[in-house]
Amino acid sequence: MENYILSVPLEKAYRLINHGPTVLVSANHDGVSNVMAAAWACALDYSPPKLTVVLDKAAKTRELVEKSGSFVIQVPTVAQLNLTQSVGSLSLADTPDKLQQAGAKLIRMDGSEQSFVEGCSAWLECKLVPEPHNQQSYDLFIGEVVGAWADTRVFKDGHWNFESADPAWRSLHYIAGGHYYAIGESISSTK
Amino acid sequence: MENYILSVPLEKAYRLINHGPTVLVSANHDGVSNVMAAAWACALDYSPPKLTVVLDKAAKTRELVEKSGSFVIQVPTVAQLNLTQSVGSLSLADTPDKLQQAGAKLIRMDGSEQSFVEGCSAWLECKLVPEPHNQQSYDLFIGEVVGAWADTRVFKDGHWNFESADPAWRSLHYIAGGHYYAIGESISSTK
Repeated sequence: MENYILSVPLEKAYRLINHGPTVLVSANHDGVSNVMAAAWACALDYSPPKLTVVLDKAAKTRELVEKSGSFVIQVPTVAQLNLTQSVGSLSLADTPDKLQQAGAKLIRMDGSEQSFVEGCSAWLECKLVPEPHNQQSYDLFIGEVVGAWADTRVFKDGHWNFESADPAWRSLHYIAGGHYYAIGESISSTK
Repeated sequence: MENYILSVPLEKAYRLINHGPTVLVSANHDGVSNVMAAAWACALDYSPPKLTVVLDKAAKTRELVEKSGSFVIQVPTVAQLNLTQSVGSLSLADTPDKLQQAGAKLIRMDGSEQSFVEGCSAWLECKLVPEPHNQQSYDLFIGEVVGAWADTRVFKDGHWNFESADPAWRSLHYIAGGHYYAIGESISSTK
């Protein structure tokens, strides 16, 4: 089977989330893995690349992030719409087979111990930058990106190719109530 | 002239930026107004609504935010592509007529002393929540949303209507090098 996943240079990692997609957050600790959806994730720095993500105190994934000090931010696709909604609404606390019910399969990447969600378009492995005040007061977590990968069918040579890829690869942008927009047309400034 | 701008209830203000658009940041202090573009802005809380935005130390707008303790986050449209790119690349420090060159006209909203960029689709007036460590270490600013407005031709009754509005109203999602994507098609989860 052809492998379409290639690593992305860290200095271009911010481009994977610069357009503001809804993301999936995965983490594992002590044999437990979980995945949640997060609309509130954002780039924070270029070099070293950093990002922020808001993790509610009720989220089991947050506990895994706090205990393990690491997590993965990944960019789900239109093909993963129901998966994204499901991991965002089911809780591991009362649904032990949450990931199976949601159809989320975890894979490994070379050189990483983290759990990555299969079928996404891009993945950012992060090391937690501990900031207890932000985490406690705002549910705000900072991660330093230590590894990045993308599926070459939609991101290659540092560029998204949403305009030429199958529309099922487009990123999801959540509003509310199960309602999303897919990313749309490419446009370039003449300034 | 018909007024299309209506206030948005604060509990629905997060929806104005939940889909991750590139935004414009405006601020004024002591008679000086400025506008910059920011791809790194993100919702942080629902109630009271809060958001984060990354403001580089070189940005004149950052200084105005720090001095005045307030700012406006607004959502530019495809029709404002060149305006957005221009306010993101020109600096008030060496281009005193930056706003004129960029074609950015500032307007007022009823009940606010802030400067708002005309022609955007949505506006969030913010009070700075001072967090000196975040501001100094990460260029990360937190704002509490104290007022919100939207143009009813594209956001009405708590919902974006990108799918039925003129495509010129679509939000911009920046990648790099003057290259953006417009927001695309509406999709809803069946989960």
